[in-house]
Amino acid sequence: MKKITVSFLPEGTRTEAGPGERLLDIASYAGIDLNNLCGGQGICAKCRVKINKGKVKLSSRIISRLSRKELEQGYVLACGAESRDEDIEVLIPSESRQTDDAIQVSDYLIAYDQPTVLQEGPDQPAAPYFRPLCRKFYLQLPPPTVTDNLSDLERIYRELRKKVPDANSIQAQFSCLQGLGKLVRKNNWKVTATINFRDYEFPVIFDIEGANTSARNYGIVIDVGTTTIVAQLVDLSTGGVLGVQASHNSQARYGEDVISRMIYACSHAGLTPLTEAVVHTINSLVNSLVEKSRIKHEYITSFVAAGNTVMSHLLLGLDPANIRIEPYIPVACRFPQIQAVEAGLKANPKAFLTCMPCVSSYVGGDITAGILACGIYDRPELSALIDVGTNGEIVVGNNDWLVCCSSSAGPAFEGGGIQCGMRAVAGAIETLHIYGDQVDFQTIGNQKPVGLCGSAIIDGIADMLSTGIIDQSGRFASLRHPRVQLVDDVPEFIVAFPDESVNGNPIVITEDDISSLIKSKGAILASLKLLLNSMEMEFSDLQRIYVAGGFGAHLDIEKAIFIGLLPDIPKDRIHFIGNSSLAGARLALLSTHAFRKAESIANSMTYFELSINPDFTNEFIASLFLPHTDMSLFPSVKEVLDRNLTNKEIHLF
Amino acid sequence: MKKITVSFLPEGTRTEAGPGERLLDIASYAGIDLNNLCGGQGICAKCRVKINKGKVKLSSRIISRLSRKELEQGYVLACGAESRDEDIEVLIPSESRQTDDAIQVSDYLIAYDQPTVLQEGPDQPAAPYFRPLCRKFYLQLPPPTVTDNLSDLERIYRELRKKVPDANSIQAQFSCLQGLGKLVRKNNWKVTATINFRDYEFPVIFDIEGANTSARNYGIVIDVGTTTIVAQLVDLSTGGVLGVQASHNSQARYGEDVISRMIYACSHAGLTPLTEAVVHTINSLVNSLVEKSRIKHEYITSFVAAGNTVMSHLLLGLDPANIRIEPYIPVACRFPQIQAVEAGLKANPKAFLTCMPCVSSYVGGDITAGILACGIYDRPELSALIDVGTNGEIVVGNNDWLVCCSSSAGPAFEGGGIQCGMRAVAGAIETLHIYGDQVDFQTIGNQKPVGLCGSAIIDGIADMLSTGIIDQSGRFASLRHPRVQLVDDVPEFIVAFPDESVNGNPIVITEDDISSLIKSKGAILASLKLLLNSMEMEFSDLQRIYVAGGFGAHLDIEKAIFIGLLPDIPKDRIHFIGNSSLAGARLALLSTHAFRKAESIANSMTYFELSINPDFTNEFIASLFLPHTDMSLFPSVKEVLDRNLTNKEIHLF
Repeated sequence: MKKITVSFLPEGTRTEAGPGERLLDIASYAGIDLNNLCGGQGICAKCRVKINKGKVKLSSRIISRLSRKELEQGYVLACGAESRDEDIEVLIPSESRQTDDAIQVSDYLIAYDQPTVLQEGPDQPAAPYFRPLCRKFYLQLPPPTVTDNLSDLERIYRELRKKVPDANSIQAQFSCLQGLGKLVRKNNWKVTATINFRDYEFPVIFDIEGANTSARNYGIVIDVGTTTIVAQLVDLSTGGVLGVQASHNSQARYGEDVISRMIYACSHAGLTPLTEAVVHTINSLVNSLVEKSRIKHEYITSFVAAGNTVMSHLLLGLDPANIRIEPYIPVACRFPQIQAVEAGLKANPKAFLTCMPCVSSYVGGDITAGILACGIYDRPELSALIDVGTNGEIVVGNNDWLVCCSSSAGPAFEGGGIQCGMRAVAGAIETLHIYGDQVDFQTIGNQKPVGLCGSAIIDGIADMLSTGIIDQSGRFASLRHPRVQLVDDVPEFIVAFPDESVNGNPIVITEDDISSLIKSKGAILASLKLLLNSMEMEFSDLQRIYVAGGFGAHLDIEKAIFIGLLPDIPKDRIHFIGNSSLAGARLALLSTHAFRKAESIANSMTYFELSINPDFTNEFIASLFLPHTDMSLFPSVKEVLDRNLTNKEIHLF
Repeated sequence: MKKITVSFLPEGTRTEAGPGERLLDIASYAGIDLNNLCGGQGICAKCRVKINKGKVKLSSRIISRLSRKELEQGYVLACGAESRDEDIEVLIPSESRQTDDAIQVSDYLIAYDQPTVLQEGPDQPAAPYFRPLCRKFYLQLPPPTVTDNLSDLERIYRELRKKVPDANSIQAQFSCLQGLGKLVRKNNWKVTATINFRDYEFPVIFDIEGANTSARNYGIVIDVGTTTIVAQLVDLSTGGVLGVQASHNSQARYGEDVISRMIYACSHAGLTPLTEAVVHTINSLVNSLVEKSRIKHEYITSFVAAGNTVMSHLLLGLDPANIRIEPYIPVACRFPQIQAVEAGLKANPKAFLTCMPCVSSYVGGDITAGILACGIYDRPELSALIDVGTNGEIVVGNNDWLVCCSSSAGPAFEGGGIQCGMRAVAGAIETLHIYGDQVDFQTIGNQKPVGLCGSAIIDGIADMLSTGIIDQSGRFASLRHPRVQLVDDVPEFIVAFPDESVNGNPIVITEDDISSLIKSKGAILASLKLLLNSMEMEFSDLQRIYVAGGFGAHLDIEKAIFIGLLPDIPKDRIHFIGNSSLAGARLALLSTHAFRKAESIANSMTYFELSINPDFTNEFIASLFLPHTDMSLFPSVKEVLDRNLTNKEIHLF
């Protein structure tokens, strides 16, 4: 088959391709990840590139996503342009490119502080719950004599029993026996046993090394997000976090959301590319962590991963096909442990990978981890966890019961489907304040703005509502505001003028954007209300709400209430906890007790399937208003809106 | 390097070899296993072959083992003859050849009947102890619905919990999840789960198949003897034995006893050939069993092997080096389970191998199995198990305590070191009766006799003693008996004249043979006495003695007492139980409860190391007499001998 050369500017990367290949895929082979929120469906229009030389074949469905001017300038969507039989030169605008290093790790890690039970120091005995899933024990064995003639293995067991007195039995994996005789003798009867404590009463020795290596015991916790993967390196002898790295999930090239990835997995290409992609991303993060902390891969003895059910399946190479179709059945929710090497992870060859248990197809291990981290399961007062992403997962309960559901919130809070939306990465406007005709904003990394991330869109809509620029249905109430302009007869609000932005285009919030966001926030609020209704409770019964998710670092709770994303309860009851999934995974890594707790959480949580719940539609429709059609649910917002209406006041915040 | 051709007659097998290779090894490469009791040390002289053409280099140490006449005729010992740079033609006499098919399985299987607790039938509920280590459960799963939306795996767990109500938790191996979604749907939610019950409360699913395969569940039990390997095929759904096969352990080419094999394992050649050899032998037995029972290898889900500690190590590929040197330490006594495929065994790729736990370096899993089979551990009365082989292992105890030791009995009872000795295979004389100048004997397979196996040698010595041909020190008392002849001034007793035997040589019992046997029986009796002394008990306290071992099928208990191999207690307290090791392994295969019992037996048994026990030498020297120097220990023998002395009676038996 004829090969053509495709060059990508500005870097000048060249690659070969055949005719009939998508530019999106060609770029991917060349190591260039383009933005691709819709999974290459031609919907999000985030993979816009410019053809400098050569011709490509355009798919008809993408033409409508670009203006005539863009088409004339040579812009195409990489997902809808195929190579022909001639060489091409493609310019990639910076906003179309996924930039790994742009991820501000701190944004994903507004650390939820761990309870002190996990602290262990020289002055205090080990707290009962600091018992990592994987521990190393240095053993100085008494050399055998004719009268003390236990076998090498039983000699190790005997010494271990002194250190793990409450173990019912200790077992070694067979592989530990190979070469054991030589090992103990060569090391003068001083060895270190590495033990898997997934079952605390039945510890399993999975490695025996010579000498004292007990200080070289590290674990990795991973938040396996659909979009972003975050990994932490944890010192298992102290519990301390040594480093954290984040990266885009390179599965994104196969689809932005879990649905499109499941569709890909069911295609002829199968699961393998998806599994390889996520493993590749994790390995890159581990490599960075290892390098920066100056440890060795072989010191990593355990991994705990928290991800939604589909991501957990894809990481483990399990077929998610039946998650997608009614009645939505995963292969497993409690996953057996697997050797890290079997999973393709780079670490000690005997290290193991534990995935946090899931509740159902659409409430995954990330939520179980979140519940573990915020401690809802452990307290008598009624609390809720709301994890806002493409799917919004909501859990309500206390130490007696837990109910949960998952609602298709859509990607609006992560910038998807929003004209100038983007993820919470460098260049994203993350806080926004409208007063009069002025706008104040802050970007991640203090750069020139590229677009708006979730928290800024919430800010903007709240301020537009409170200042009367839009009404409660999300429509522009007045077109006379100096920052409101009409484009093709549709009004939009200008957050940043062309000269303020990176790419010379204005950054705007359109009426369509507001409509998308209302649907997203409506789905979440309706789900929360439905769960409360099912237990005959109300918003006001909630003593605590934990909000997790990737909006950006600075979710303004008051504004989130104002638009009706969160219920109208006292602000001090609501806590934005950032990446609770990672925090929960770390708890499990550091405590067998916590891991078991997670299993019992996952087992006991009652899952509500919204798709078959007739009440959901009513609740959802009632929520498609700012903040809600039933204003009695939002008394504090009503008060402000009523006052504004009376006073014609503009400045609220 | 120059290659020569070596031809073996009578079959005409040809093989290539280099100069300087031992004929024993060349024959082995060519697939011909020669007798080799001493492990190629030039001691047993059982590998005698005739050089028809060509020249070989003789080791000086073997020349003394052959008569001048033999040397003149071209006979050499294959272990002491090396190839030179010319082709050779070698004739292998039938008596020098190991013949697998000559093993009479029944000889190894005087079945010790299993307690009825293991019986399960349609009319009686499953007895509590019939719980094979590996069981299959056919599950008809209710298909999932939106309201019953458990994952595929948890759906299987739920159904299994109904069938295994007392399991604390059920876990699946990760590999079961791969392809599970398709499997359950393709098979209409009817599947069979195969479960490892090594821990009954924590069963592990290691295979899930479509449809109902629960009747196709077979196990193999193996008695991994140093000399002979016996394997049984057991139907795990009924507990019934479907077949049994026995074969020489093809490790014999690397040495006849465990010591020479350990030496080989420590040489540059290493462990691997030994492990491969025993695995090869087991696979051949399994192949025959599978073929004869018309089942498939994949239906075999579990193996239980019982062997001495060295054989267990060699089977599992563990280095036995430290078993040989003081303080005699094995790598392990309780062996972790291993996948059969990892061990090289041919079966279902997910089948597992369990080795019976050992007590010490010289009291192995065969003895633990024997104790399990004969039930000593379970009864209040004092009993003993005596397993007679190259090492004689002796256990004394009851349901409160168990003590054991191992004594180097030497190979006399298996025909080793005995001029016309041989193992209990076809052609071996197994019972013998001397009256007047007549001898009656029976051979295994009713063939022309080839030699004498252990039981016949015991018979012969007992009769020679009772008839006054030999005295209590084992020396010939009279040279006037027509069957006594002098060869090089040393007397010997002719059991079969040249025309009666297969190879035209007389079958004799020499004074040296008697001396060897006295040492062997002395070591065993002394060990038993020492164990009893240690508990301040006497022979007469023994309520039961179980005798196991490979003497042949028909050990005459009375004659064994007469020569002082067994103590002088009422004959009905002594039971010859044949292969108790295999019976115990089968119990473990069929009952998790029994397997655990074996573990606790191995754990709780007290091992006496005779090599450092000063009393042993005294007991041993006192036992080097027929039956013993202290005749008060053998009152019934004393009575016979005194009467014979008075009556000059010749015919006793």
